[in-house]
Amino acid sequence: MTLRARLRRLVEDRRFQNLVIAVIIVNAVTLALETSRDIVAGYGGLLHTVDYIALGIFVAELLAKIYVYRGAFFRDGWNLFDLVVVGIALVPASGPFAVLRALRILRVLRLVSLVPSMRKVVAGLLAAVPGMASIAALLGLIVFVAGVMATKLFGGIVPDDFGDLGTSLFTLFQVMTGEAWPDIADAVMERAPMAWIFFVVYILVSSFAVLNLFIAVVVSAMEEQLRDEIREEEDRQAAEQAAVNEQILAELRALRAEVARLRERQPDPS
Amino acid sequence: MTLRARLRRLVEDRRFQNLVIAVIIVNAVTLALETSRDIVAGYGGLLHTVDYIALGIFVAELLAKIYVYRGAFFRDGWNLFDLVVVGIALVPASGPFAVLRALRILRVLRLVSLVPSMRKVVAGLLAAVPGMASIAALLGLIVFVAGVMATKLFGGIVPDDFGDLGTSLFTLFQVMTGEAWPDIADAVMERAPMAWIFFVVYILVSSFAVLNLFIAVVVSAMEEQLRDEIREEEDRQAAEQAAVNEQILAELRALRAEVARLRERQPDPS
Amino acid sequence: MTLRARLRRLVEDRRFQNLVIAVIIVNAVTLALETSRDIVAGYGGLLHTVDYIALGIFVAELLAKIYVYRGAFFRDGWNLFDLVVVGIALVPASGPFAVLRALRILRVLRLVSLVPSMRKVVAGLLAAVPGMASIAALLGLIVFVAGVMATKLFGGIVPDDFGDLGTSLFTLFQVMTGEAWPDIADAVMERAPMAWIFFVVYILVSSFAVLNLFIAVVVSAMEEQLRDEIREEEDRQAAEQAAVNEQILAELRALRAEVARLRERQPDPS
Amino acid sequence: MTLRARLRRLVEDRRFQNLVIAVIIVNAVTLALETSRDIVAGYGGLLHTVDYIALGIFVAELLAKIYVYRGAFFRDGWNLFDLVVVGIALVPASGPFAVLRALRILRVLRLVSLVPSMRKVVAGLLAAVPGMASIAALLGLIVFVAGVMATKLFGGIVPDDFGDLGTSLFTLFQVMTGEAWPDIADAVMERAPMAWIFFVVYILVSSFAVLNLFIAVVVSAMEEQLRDEIREEEDRQAAEQAAVNEQILAELRALRAEVARLRERQPDPS
Repeated sequence: MTLRARLRRLVEDRRFQNLVIAVIIVNAVTLALETSRDIVAGYGGLLHTVDYIALGIFVAELLAKIYVYRGAFFRDGWNLFDLVVVGIALVPASGPFAVLRALRILRVLRLVSLVPSMRKVVAGLLAAVPGMASIAALLGLIVFVAGVMATKLFGGIVPDDFGDLGTSLFTLFQVMTGEAWPDIADAVMERAPMAWIFFVVYILVSSFAVLNLFIAVVVSAMEEQLRDEIREEEDRQAAEQAAVNEQILAELRALRAEVARLRERQPDPS
Repeated sequence: MTLRARLRRLVEDRRFQNLVIAVIIVNAVTLALETSRDIVAGYGGLLHTVDYIALGIFVAELLAKIYVYRGAFFRDGWNLFDLVVVGIALVPASGPFAVLRALRILRVLRLVSLVPSMRKVVAGLLAAVPGMASIAALLGLIVFVAGVMATKLFGGIVPDDFGDLGTSLFTLFQVMTGEAWPDIADAVMERAPMAWIFFVVYILVSSFAVLNLFIAVVVSAMEEQLRDEIREEEDRQAAEQAAVNEQILAELRALRAEVARLRERQPDPS
Repeated sequence: MTLRARLRRLVEDRRFQNLVIAVIIVNAVTLALETSRDIVAGYGGLLHTVDYIALGIFVAELLAKIYVYRGAFFRDGWNLFDLVVVGIALVPASGPFAVLRALRILRVLRLVSLVPSMRKVVAGLLAAVPGMASIAALLGLIVFVAGVMATKLFGGIVPDDFGDLGTSLFTLFQVMTGEAWPDIADAVMERAPMAWIFFVVYILVSSFAVLNLFIAVVVSAMEEQLRDEIREEEDRQAAEQAAVNEQILAELRALRAEVARLRERQPDPS
Repeated sequence: MTLRARLRRLVEDRRFQNLVIAVIIVNAVTLALETSRDIVAGYGGLLHTVDYIALGIFVAELLAKIYVYRGAFFRDGWNLFDLVVVGIALVPASGPFAVLRALRILRVLRLVSLVPSMRKVVAGLLAAVPGMASIAALLGLIVFVAGVMATKLFGGIVPDDFGDLGTSLFTLFQVMTGEAWPDIADAVMERAPMAWIFFVVYILVSSFAVLNLFIAVVVSAMEEQLRDEIREEEDRQAAEQAAVNEQILAELRALRAEVARLRERQPDPS
């Protein structure tokens, strides 16, 4: 039995996967503990060792998988995700990359790709995305247009909120989440009393679009669920009906046979 | 008739249950009145007496039930709930347990287990929980990962909101409820301008997950409702169809009999 | 033709109802204008005159209806509503009743009872209420219990928010609408660090209950809509099937007749 | 081939439409860049030139379409929309019209009318509007009544929020979006302690109405989707059944023919 076959059997072994899951959980704990200065002061070394060991196991696991599945490995989105979140830890986290140290925790998300039930949920969420694409694009367009308009109109009045396009877009995102928009509106309206028109229209339009974004997801989810309901229901009934139809046709054929025989036994009138 | 049989008849008597409900309501009133210093000053003694009597009745009721149902009593979740909320009042509420005095009001929730319609509602809510488990776990994972990341990234900048993991998780829970996040974000962005990425991504991801949590509940609720609709509708129609099929088959059998008889009466051509 | 019959024909005349609608709208405008000090200063007298005329018309209309429908008048909820909102204006709005002057605007809601489409909408909303009763009661119970608990636990710490039961209930209603709860929570947690447990649990439980309140409405609305869909769909198909069944049965009867005739014409073998 | 025919072929050419889309996107970029003072300082001239060219292309396109479609052009809402957003740029944006300069960005919304998928989404949203009309009107009525009432009751206490009807309506819109209402309520309740009744009732009623507005949209969306599901499902099954019915009827006819022939060949008993 070749090394590759043996490795395949290993990485596809449920116990091996559970081991990896255990390592992820342990790693999650150590990364969580690392957030406490005191604990790092006391057990920093230990935590880092565990972290390195976990990382080593992940790297080994992925290399094994790559060796086993070759090109196929890279065609599975989940593997690429694993590759990225593990890879992050290999970049020297120094200088501009210091932030990457904080991203190591993303590894914990590997749980999603390893626990089937979660994997199913995420797959379900992603399945809803295409149906949302058009409305999401529309929503983006609305926010962009509103952003440019707001920057032009209010940029001079409230530079903190609408100073430049970026700031405006962020502010409008806040407004869209329905947060603190009265304060922003009041600040603007002090100098531009008619600004309420902009805010009311923007809130109505954007929340209506968001609502429809939600609906797109809800409907697609429901549809799937209910279609199955209806299908199975219909099929159950169709089966019953089919049985009866069979019966009727059988009866009919029998009857024809009967009549046919009747005719044969009849004296020829000629 | 044994004592146990008599007790069983008692505790299963609707009037007895209504009595308990009445006691709960009276107790709720006294506990509500206890929140007012003035009233306690004036009628504190009376309120406590009523409270003790109510407690006594509850204890007696539960003991009776335990004596009647024996082990079965402990296999019903509602009973365990009753046991806990009543038991709380028996713990000496002093020193560290002082808070328990405030938990006595939880007794009022016994209404839920005694009023059938409410019991049904709660049962319905709990029925939706399993369907939410996976998404809830995913949501928890997202918040946990975001919490560790935020503590690492912003802990030094805004210790009040992200000082340690616990604080971060609470802050992110606030953000998830869409509360006051602009203030938090602004405080962070003063020192870390790129932090908006974290907040926008976190809000989009978490609210999308929450949305799907809701959908899970809605869909399961709707599905149940509508499946019944469809079922009954289909069945109604299937019944009609079945009747007609019976008729057709009867007709056919009659016809065959007819033809059969026809053949018997026919002279044998031989 | 009796006066009563004539009056009946009048109050049931579409044009008369449109007149009343017109009066309501005019009255709405005057009441709106009354909110402006300047306008009242200038045209106060005119506005009041119009208001009194409108009131007179409403009173006359209702008296006519009472005379026409007698007891039946009081069995229609819409009429009672009209009676109350018009009656308010007849109470001498002085001293403690000064607030009633502001309630005169409620008259405008008579539009709802006079415009069929709106009437239908409101009827629809009210139809959803019974389905919500149990969950609403449960929600009320949750808020009440939380209120008593919060008053006991935090009343001493943050009297502004939890000083007495009433204040607590209002505060918890605010929290339930997801408003400003972080500020409240922070104020409490300064002195009672563990209070976050209370807030997180309360928010999760109450929002879950509210969610289910919404679902109750949504589902009942959808169910109605979709049941009709399904019904009509099924019926359409059932009709088709029925037609075919008729055809089959006709064929069969014809066949039997044929065979029967065949037998008659057959020589008796005896 | 006439000029008109040639123009029609041009404006209906997919490539031409893609060109216009490209121009819109370029224009969107320039308008976005115009929001930055520095960039305008550096490349203002260039940006304006591009803007004028884009405008020229749009005008030419619309003139061509008008020439091609004549009256039909004005019967398509999308065309009128294009006409308005392009027309805005032709109004001399000076003095009172200065704000119009900011509205030029609305041109970018032409993307919606040119990209089929977005066009479909917007059509879908608009399709939901009629179903919302009645509830929207009701909601408007509620806000109006509450506004007049609040101005009367609280106008004197908190002029900033309820000074005049306009302010009150805007404040109540804020409250309806669930924003900052505790602050407003507290400000009022300092002087009018019973005001909480107004706010609680208003929030419950308005959010219930808004909920039903949402439901109206959700239901109409779902209904459409699911009706199609059910239809197709039913039809699929109906087809199967129809086939079987055909078979049965064929059998029956064959049988009758058989029996008929049988009779002909039979000796006349007379």
